[in-house]
Amino acid sequence: MKKNTLKIAGFFLISVLIFSCNNTKSTKDKSNNKNSHPKLILTAQGVKEIRAQLGSVPIFDNTLKAVKEEIDAEIAAGIETPIPKDYSGGYTHSKHKRNFVVLQKAGVLYQILNDDKYAKYVKDMLMQYEAMYKTLPLHPKTRSYARGKLFWQCLNDSNWLVYVSQAYDCIYNYLSEEERNKLETNLFRPFADHISVDSPQFYQRVHNHSTWGNAAVGMIGLVMDDDDLIQRALYGIKDQKIDKTAKDDDGGFINKDGKAGFLANIEEPFSPDGYYNEGPYYQRYAMYPFLIFAEGLHNVKPELKIFEYKEGVLLKSINALLNLTDADGEFFPLNDGQKGMSYYTAALVSAVNIAYKFGGKNPELLSIAEKQNRVVLDDTGLAIAKGIKDGLAKPFTKKSINLSDGKNGDEGGVGILRNENLELVFKYASQGSSHGHYDKLSFSLYENGNEVIQDYGLSRFVNIEQKGGGNYLKENKTWAKQSIAHNTLSVNEESHFKGKYEIGSKHHSNLYFYDDKDANVQIISATEVNAYSGTEMLRTFALIKDKDFERPITIDLFKINSPTKNQYDLPYYYLGHIMKTNFEYESYTQLETLGTKNGYQHLWKEASGKPSTDNTVFSWKNNNIFYTLTTTSNNSDDLILSRIGANDPDYNLRKDPVFIVSRKETKNTTFASIIESHGSYSPVNELALNAYSNISSIKIILDSDNYTAIQIVTKSDKIKTLIISNKDNSESKKHNIKINDKEYNWNGSYYYN
Amino acid sequence: MKKNTLKIAGFFLISVLIFSCNNTKSTKDKSNNKNSHPKLILTAQGVKEIRAQLGSVPIFDNTLKAVKEEIDAEIAAGIETPIPKDYSGGYTHSKHKRNFVVLQKAGVLYQILNDDKYAKYVKDMLMQYEAMYKTLPLHPKTRSYARGKLFWQCLNDSNWLVYVSQAYDCIYNYLSEEERNKLETNLFRPFADHISVDSPQFYQRVHNHSTWGNAAVGMIGLVMDDDDLIQRALYGIKDQKIDKTAKDDDGGFINKDGKAGFLANIEEPFSPDGYYNEGPYYQRYAMYPFLIFAEGLHNVKPELKIFEYKEGVLLKSINALLNLTDADGEFFPLNDGQKGMSYYTAALVSAVNIAYKFGGKNPELLSIAEKQNRVVLDDTGLAIAKGIKDGLAKPFTKKSINLSDGKNGDEGGVGILRNENLELVFKYASQGSSHGHYDKLSFSLYENGNEVIQDYGLSRFVNIEQKGGGNYLKENKTWAKQSIAHNTLSVNEESHFKGKYEIGSKHHSNLYFYDDKDANVQIISATEVNAYSGTEMLRTFALIKDKDFERPITIDLFKINSPTKNQYDLPYYYLGHIMKTNFEYESYTQLETLGTKNGYQHLWKEASGKPSTDNTVFSWKNNNIFYTLTTTSNNSDDLILSRIGANDPDYNLRKDPVFIVSRKETKNTTFASIIESHGSYSPVNELALNAYSNISSIKIILDSDNYTAIQIVTKSDKIKTLIISNKDNSESKKHNIKINDKEYNWNGSYYYN
Repeated sequence: MKKNTLKIAGFFLISVLIFSCNNTKSTKDKSNNKNSHPKLILTAQGVKEIRAQLGSVPIFDNTLKAVKEEIDAEIAAGIETPIPKDYSGGYTHSKHKRNFVVLQKAGVLYQILNDDKYAKYVKDMLMQYEAMYKTLPLHPKTRSYARGKLFWQCLNDSNWLVYVSQAYDCIYNYLSEEERNKLETNLFRPFADHISVDSPQFYQRVHNHSTWGNAAVGMIGLVMDDDDLIQRALYGIKDQKIDKTAKDDDGGFINKDGKAGFLANIEEPFSPDGYYNEGPYYQRYAMYPFLIFAEGLHNVKPELKIFEYKEGVLLKSINALLNLTDADGEFFPLNDGQKGMSYYTAALVSAVNIAYKFGGKNPELLSIAEKQNRVVLDDTGLAIAKGIKDGLAKPFTKKSINLSDGKNGDEGGVGILRNENLELVFKYASQGSSHGHYDKLSFSLYENGNEVIQDYGLSRFVNIEQKGGGNYLKENKTWAKQSIAHNTLSVNEESHFKGKYEIGSKHHSNLYFYDDKDANVQIISATEVNAYSGTEMLRTFALIKDKDFERPITIDLFKINSPTKNQYDLPYYYLGHIMKTNFEYESYTQLETLGTKNGYQHLWKEASGKPSTDNTVFSWKNNNIFYTLTTTSNNSDDLILSRIGANDPDYNLRKDPVFIVSRKETKNTTFASIIESHGSYSPVNELALNAYSNISSIKIILDSDNYTAIQIVTKSDKIKTLIISNKDNSESKKHNIKINDKEYNWNGSYYYN
Repeated sequence: MKKNTLKIAGFFLISVLIFSCNNTKSTKDKSNNKNSHPKLILTAQGVKEIRAQLGSVPIFDNTLKAVKEEIDAEIAAGIETPIPKDYSGGYTHSKHKRNFVVLQKAGVLYQILNDDKYAKYVKDMLMQYEAMYKTLPLHPKTRSYARGKLFWQCLNDSNWLVYVSQAYDCIYNYLSEEERNKLETNLFRPFADHISVDSPQFYQRVHNHSTWGNAAVGMIGLVMDDDDLIQRALYGIKDQKIDKTAKDDDGGFINKDGKAGFLANIEEPFSPDGYYNEGPYYQRYAMYPFLIFAEGLHNVKPELKIFEYKEGVLLKSINALLNLTDADGEFFPLNDGQKGMSYYTAALVSAVNIAYKFGGKNPELLSIAEKQNRVVLDDTGLAIAKGIKDGLAKPFTKKSINLSDGKNGDEGGVGILRNENLELVFKYASQGSSHGHYDKLSFSLYENGNEVIQDYGLSRFVNIEQKGGGNYLKENKTWAKQSIAHNTLSVNEESHFKGKYEIGSKHHSNLYFYDDKDANVQIISATEVNAYSGTEMLRTFALIKDKDFERPITIDLFKINSPTKNQYDLPYYYLGHIMKTNFEYESYTQLETLGTKNGYQHLWKEASGKPSTDNTVFSWKNNNIFYTLTTTSNNSDDLILSRIGANDPDYNLRKDPVFIVSRKETKNTTFASIIESHGSYSPVNELALNAYSNISSIKIILDSDNYTAIQIVTKSDKIKTLIISNKDNSESKKHNIKINDKEYNWNGSYYYN
């Protein structure tokens, strides 16, 4: 139920015309002391600077012009504040959503353009809300675990207050004291109370819902200079007790360890590297309240040093988030993430603007802002627009990065290996709260911003009403969260942690090593020992640029130790069209599902075969690039060509293909695989270049407790060896082993040559 | 086996640097009389002009610079003319292909740069060919119906001569008479003889293969001033008899009516509108020999007035071809067409350059050339590059167009309705030779250059060796050509003409009417009475812009008369994700094919249901636009959700979806359907706009022999009526009918209001 992007979205509009301010009224005198208004997001000093720069900073002027046109039209259309009655998408819901966006913008326009018509419009609408709210009961719709008053859930009420507190701040000085008293007494304070003390199950949590609630209460508190509200925002409701075993609508614990308040919401979900435990899609959603409230705190209560809190994690988190995007700026869809969401979304515009102004004016952020081509109409937006105008922009260069997960950075993480145009995302994080998927040690691979090996993402069509009201679909649980839906190991056709949140949320994978020092060898390795009781997994990915290959190759070593015989299914969700395999397979003339539960019921078994040699070669073409997966085979392997889409009565799933290596009746084993990107096809020239793999063979030449070594022979008989130190990866540790009479010496975690 | 694009492709390269000619040698004196050289494509006068303009026409200079760099590298690498032994893709094949491209370019560089090193290079290589060719046997590979000597098929030998005759022309004056005699006697004349008099089954046809042969013989004839060869090129081999029932490798008749020669090849396959009977993909392939030989004829034998031949059909054909592209310049994949081929291909660069120079300097062609961003290095390329430099370019505006098919324009045709960003392609043409599909009255729909309702195209991966050697796959016949693979009617699960070329090639559909006069109502209607013996079909498409709909709507009226009860299957190959249907369907937990033959064996039956009301509503989302198909239903209808991909053991087919309305046990019936494009979805804003159809109902309110009338009621209760005059569409004819007590009056083919 996190739909607020919608409301933010309209805020930033693009225009190519230059705005020039024709307003001839005299500038109002506003004192510059701490209690003058505006002070929350816009500041009195900032407004002065903005007015002085009008007409000279293109991106700022263009944004302003578009917003003015939009709000002028709204004013012309008149004010409406209907009695709440609808769910999301219904008329009253949409109208109140629209109203708070419009109020915030009108407030900003009043400050920047110094035209009373905007202040009057804000005042008139607020008075209508005041008149309605003071007798307003709970919203009539009962579906939410925390019902709001204007909206069916407190989350949306909080959205309203985060925006409206900004509008109120903008017209604060325009109002008489009597008017302010009326609004604060009958509207703002009871509103803040309803979403906090009256709804502790919503407010008193570490959760993105609560972050919105905390920000809402805190922001109106800052404007009203109400320390009680500010303290409640920062530290939660005093002396509030809550049932630690209760769960919310998404299946997550409401509050299992009793923490609450804005600072706890920064403390808990962010790792020291700025990774947010639910993943980038929800981080993007949560960024707005985190940062907009932080900006307010910075402006009004600089002594809190909020941007330095937890070693500057809020600003770090923006850098982390920008690094969690592909070449097109789209977020990797870890956990519940809808594909296509990108740093072009409004929340990231304000995040980038804030990060620039308060994070040391990193010139690389200017290139992101240039792409976004719009700014926030405040001091931060002015700063970044001026930076662009002054030609300071530098490219935002994304390199390999390893982001720890967990409050203290010790609960696994997410690593992204980058080399040339290839990006490999390796997830070895903690559960990711109620939005987590059961996909320890899973990966996805991108080239040029396109998916090569995809992560499925969520099963939901956000805000598309026809598809289950735009909410999570049942296939999110039966398919998207299951292990077999991901590019990782499923054992005995079960999901990790039996697909149970209670178990999964207790565990996390662990980094074994990450090494990006050698520009040609980007490598990461992690362990998972809890997903299947007794089964130990070590997975290593290396993205290696080697002159004997056209493009960087991806090496995937998946080592499994188990005391019992199991079935190991390792899927590769390739996208594209199969070119060729080196094995024979039977194509079925009648299709059955691959299994009956744990996601297997959603896979059609299209074809299957057995390895023809000790290497299995599977090649495909996607976006006019050829790809080949070469993997070591055992006799017991079944090679399965499958497709998503079975037991999908509402056509909620994408019918995407997968290649699965299924190894039967095996205790310890290692899957050694290489994915090559090679060649190209031009449909215009009809020319296929380098359409074949360059690998003649790969072989595991040693696989002991201490070492795993593979040897790759290229088609021109070049030999490459990769050895992983399985037990001791300390940099100082010297390793010396002999394999097939050849001696290998190295220090630390791996050897490649 | 038409792979020549490859060879042409490398010719045009893009560069952004300006070339400047540093060659200081004196310009050779060349007489300007008709027998001076060059005269074929480059002309002595043209070369003078090119030299005078060097350094001042950017696109020309850039192309020249790139070609010079390419050929200098080739000269440095040395000459190799290996003994022929390989099929396409093999070394000797590729080398000889490369050689003829290089020869042509080196000849051009010699003329433009006046540097003897290029002439010497051409001469040396030609002498090596001469030494080899005079004793060369037939190519050792035996697969072709007409084996070449340098290549496995005469087609490729012809490609060679088309290019090499240009090179020879360029260095003609550089050679001594003795050298010329040697080349002509031992190489060119026997070469021309081999592909013509020695291979009449290849040469003596109306077919794109023969066009290459005719052009090759004619072009070397023009250079050598050999009237015998020129006559043979223009009119075919004198007194040659050929078996009229013989077929070639693709299953087409070799020569069923005895016509041959270049003029016959212009005469037969082109309609007076310039439509080429095999469709745009093959027209694109055939354009190069047609136009390059025509240019040579124009230069050397202007008295032939080749560009005025058949009322200027060659130049018209370029306009037709450009109109047979979507918004991105990609050809509609009618018949055997590989998707992605576009006017960016080299053959279209020369076509557009030639059309500009010889077709009245249409400024709209300049905008195409700008997009192509390269030109031919000859007089035509100079002309178009100068036009661009002079700022004369205008947008190439594509409007609705109806292109007749057949030598005399009376064998059906292809109509393209365009309105705003929507393009509807309606095929009611003749069989299209051996590359034709059995898809009378089929259609496809595009928006913004993206497929909405797709035509499958061919089943082949051209030049991708892993997929059946890059040749036609067996699924081209079992699937891609079958009627059920297309958006048209299949009766009783059989293909049109029983899928038999012998029957299909005797028939064609007929235009009933085409009317684009009303900018808001673009409409076309055609009949087909031979596809199924005794069954008459009349299909009408209207693309209507109406203020009560967000975007133009597509109306599809398919009227069928049959004396017997039949099963009528009408598929819609939508692309995208299903949003919602208004009918219940059963999703199968085990998949079977839809049938056993005629393409049905390639379709998985995923789900099926029955209409819930007298309208069936099916909506989907593609490229973030919503689409809804609303169609009138009968009780006997089965509504089938199906997917391509069954019985596809080599994964040659794309696994695309289809929605099929299957009407059982019916004699006469009419399918009345509307496709709406509406709204949008933004994954960045997560905002779904106008996600629902605007249609409340459609109804057939009259369906007689004389008239078919439908009524559309919108959700805001607006009523729209479309009536088709089924029997008399003459413009003067006054129609006056009463339906449900309302009177309708109109003139001509249709009424809409």
